[in-house]
Amino acid sequence: MSFDTIATPTVEVAPHREPVFAHEEQSNAALARLDEYVKTYGCRPNLLVIMFDDVGWGDFGCYGGGIAVGAPTPNIDRLARDGLLLTSCYSEPSCSPSRASLLTGRLPMRHGLLRPPMYGERGGLEGEITLSQLLSEAGYTTQAVGKWHMGENQASQPQRVGFDDFYGFLSVSDMYSEWRDPAFFPEVVYSEARTEWIENQPFNRCFVHGTKGGELEDVEEVTIPVLSTLDDKWAAYSVDFIRRMSDASQPWFLYHCTRGAHFDNYPLERYLGASPAKHPYKDTLIELDDIVGRLVDALRESGQLEHTLVFVSSDNGPNLETWPDAAYTPFRCAKGSTWEGGVRVPGIFSWPGMIEAGGASDGLFAFTDLLPTALTLAGSDAVPADRFIDGVDQTSFLISPQALSHRKYQYYWLLNQFSALRVGEYKLMLASISDDDHDVHSQGGFEGVTQRYPYGRLYNLYLDPKETRSYLVRKLAYIDAFTSGIGKHLATFGAYPPKNAFAR
Amino acid sequence: MSFDTIATPTVEVAPHREPVFAHEEQSNAALARLDEYVKTYGCRPNLLVIMFDDVGWGDFGCYGGGIAVGAPTPNIDRLARDGLLLTSCYSEPSCSPSRASLLTGRLPMRHGLLRPPMYGERGGLEGEITLSQLLSEAGYTTQAVGKWHMGENQASQPQRVGFDDFYGFLSVSDMYSEWRDPAFFPEVVYSEARTEWIENQPFNRCFVHGTKGGELEDVEEVTIPVLSTLDDKWAAYSVDFIRRMSDASQPWFLYHCTRGAHFDNYPLERYLGASPAKHPYKDTLIELDDIVGRLVDALRESGQLEHTLVFVSSDNGPNLETWPDAAYTPFRCAKGSTWEGGVRVPGIFSWPGMIEAGGASDGLFAFTDLLPTALTLAGSDAVPADRFIDGVDQTSFLISPQALSHRKYQYYWLLNQFSALRVGEYKLMLASISDDDHDVHSQGGFEGVTQRYPYGRLYNLYLDPKETRSYLVRKLAYIDAFTSGIGKHLATFGAYPPKNAFAR
Repeated sequence: MSFDTIATPTVEVAPHREPVFAHEEQSNAALARLDEYVKTYGCRPNLLVIMFDDVGWGDFGCYGGGIAVGAPTPNIDRLARDGLLLTSCYSEPSCSPSRASLLTGRLPMRHGLLRPPMYGERGGLEGEITLSQLLSEAGYTTQAVGKWHMGENQASQPQRVGFDDFYGFLSVSDMYSEWRDPAFFPEVVYSEARTEWIENQPFNRCFVHGTKGGELEDVEEVTIPVLSTLDDKWAAYSVDFIRRMSDASQPWFLYHCTRGAHFDNYPLERYLGASPAKHPYKDTLIELDDIVGRLVDALRESGQLEHTLVFVSSDNGPNLETWPDAAYTPFRCAKGSTWEGGVRVPGIFSWPGMIEAGGASDGLFAFTDLLPTALTLAGSDAVPADRFIDGVDQTSFLISPQALSHRKYQYYWLLNQFSALRVGEYKLMLASISDDDHDVHSQGGFEGVTQRYPYGRLYNLYLDPKETRSYLVRKLAYIDAFTSGIGKHLATFGAYPPKNAFAR
Repeated sequence: MSFDTIATPTVEVAPHREPVFAHEEQSNAALARLDEYVKTYGCRPNLLVIMFDDVGWGDFGCYGGGIAVGAPTPNIDRLARDGLLLTSCYSEPSCSPSRASLLTGRLPMRHGLLRPPMYGERGGLEGEITLSQLLSEAGYTTQAVGKWHMGENQASQPQRVGFDDFYGFLSVSDMYSEWRDPAFFPEVVYSEARTEWIENQPFNRCFVHGTKGGELEDVEEVTIPVLSTLDDKWAAYSVDFIRRMSDASQPWFLYHCTRGAHFDNYPLERYLGASPAKHPYKDTLIELDDIVGRLVDALRESGQLEHTLVFVSSDNGPNLETWPDAAYTPFRCAKGSTWEGGVRVPGIFSWPGMIEAGGASDGLFAFTDLLPTALTLAGSDAVPADRFIDGVDQTSFLISPQALSHRKYQYYWLLNQFSALRVGEYKLMLASISDDDHDVHSQGGFEGVTQRYPYGRLYNLYLDPKETRSYLVRKLAYIDAFTSGIGKHLATFGAYPPKNAFAR
């Protein structure tokens, strides 16, 4: 990325689409290669998304973590070396908004999941069109495994939004375990009212299985001992799926979401003490890295590695309120915030033969970009036309060597408040969770107060990756690039009103 | 590293030596391999030290920087991939102390350079025994190129402390240029008293050349345009040295110290705008990375790559007072401090055929360790016996695959004050420059106030790489491991009094 990113204009794709950098030559070459791939192999590529929970940008060796922070990640690092490592991949500030943006290609203000629904709260994917649904319609076998957390209500369940099969839990790790653990909820654990209380909580305490259009069936109640085995069980389920699909004639989409390394981490017995740090969070990372190895091995052994786009990421930055059971990011603040620590996540793409090994880029990639990109790979032109789609097609960014991102703007939303805009290496911040410099290592992004910066603050993320020195007065020449970008973005909400604008 | 590091006792090497982890099997195997190398090739390995100035742990791609912070470092990253990447390599908090520790194997309290001598101040290597001297006596050709900054006085000059030849400047980049630049010293630049003032400053404004035992000769006055060419000229001088040495029968030691990326950076014209960030600091990093490429190419093309141990590092953490002309570290605080940001530096070792490619370790390596290690490689047993040597022999840590460090303790000194001790992933801090959390991104380590922590603060550098949460009360079980380590270390100053204890 560079100043060119600020200076280059975007082109309109359609009124309901985020404008893009065209990079026509790069795009044409990539589409020609994709056509050739399809002709050669007679099929469309598979898509494997491996989504971690609350894992940090800095946790992996390939991002400067690994052994430096007590948990080597050789399988992930190898995947990055054999593929494309993105240093500017963006989620949303918390779990459900990120996941829903990934599956809908839309920002939280549009899909409506501004924050995670907890303990059976209402909220979910109602009315949304999902990547699973679109890929299913394009002939893909669709499988979701592991954490869901985009609504427990029937309409939001995975087997109702396009997945042929789902094996996992509907909510989030801590909700199944925290009230069982006297370290965190002694007042529940030691209370006689416990049974009645928990029975009245409107969420399913089991992990579940279901098939397209059907009802979910309980598999097993998620006690703490069960919780510690979930990632292992889910990995086995996905490995089995991958093996079975090697004989299939249609391509597939596997959406594999781990339980780990969300608090509270109770590692599987054979990983206890497996990390140099010998800490539950770090031991869990060792297991997650192993699981990446198992899934990639299954692809390789079944002859599908060269036919599968793999994407590994995490749904947001570290949750530091639960430290030391917490991830690591070199950036400012944490999950819940729009500082880089909250939303800049690992982003590794692999597709041997199509994605050049050893690539790395700081071009912008937003979670919303996966949907239009995956549809192009699937040969589908079914990007929804009746609603605004924030994602841009990044096919050529991913599969062309040393390619440029098609995304000019990274938009940062703090719940229903516009927070910041990144263009190139510059980020203009208008509001954040707290401006206290202590944010750099605060207890987390959820505890701060909202602050608005009437003049804005401009950070250069190359020279100041920790966002500590506003450079605005020195770079006033760029203000128009930012204000016009923000203005056009906010105007889209006039033509396409937000779904949930008044929710927090 | 792990808890084992805390639990395992050290063994005494000699009363005047830092105790070590013996790792006997690993040591014996390494020494046998070294013997075999010497038998096979009939010579001892060369040693190339490439020392950068004020470059940060986070600046290189292989440490999570590179393209993420606006300056890719492909040559350095490749060297790391082909060799051993250390994530816990330690300098001293500032330049001259670090360099003198590297060349003497001794901590600043022993060699006496507690802080850099500026503008011709007294202070230097008087009375010290240097690695250059010892390698010279062991039959090595010794060459110093570039920045010196261990004293301008005659006894401290490179050609008087064991180097056969020196081509570089005696002090530090800013001293040659800052008073010439109206951006920094308008009161000098626009003053009629300028000429007289600068003539009375007791330092040589030229870069110089000299040969062993002789007088230094001025090469050229270091004006700003000359300054911008120095790294290029010095690289050419070193490349020429490497090429000439390919025919030599004796091994060599090349100590190549760059001008960059010390403030103020005035990039060589062809590097202006060469980085994605297009900023002088980042452009300079591009040049430094290119220079690493040139030196390694010269080794390869002259058939010496497999016969040379290369060590790339930086003399301390970022100087943030000069931001944006500054480095990047993910760690807390900056140059001048004993927080990790001040002293944890890149550490890359390469020696194809002897150091396994793709290795990485967070075992402790201190700058003082280079001297005894290099002497072992040189087949010399001349580690000085008349003074305390803080360095430990790390030969087997470097050349054995997946090996363990021989160093148990990392000692942090803040000028003449004992500051902290690291054992394993734990760091007990007793005093620091400032405890303000703003340190995480303060203007720099030089501006703080000294704070003492009467009970100590214990940081777990795996779980809390940014040193923000003292874990002491939870880990009181380890206190004895720390207090005994500190006690033994401080006791060495009884038997071997410090040289400069009352200097600041």
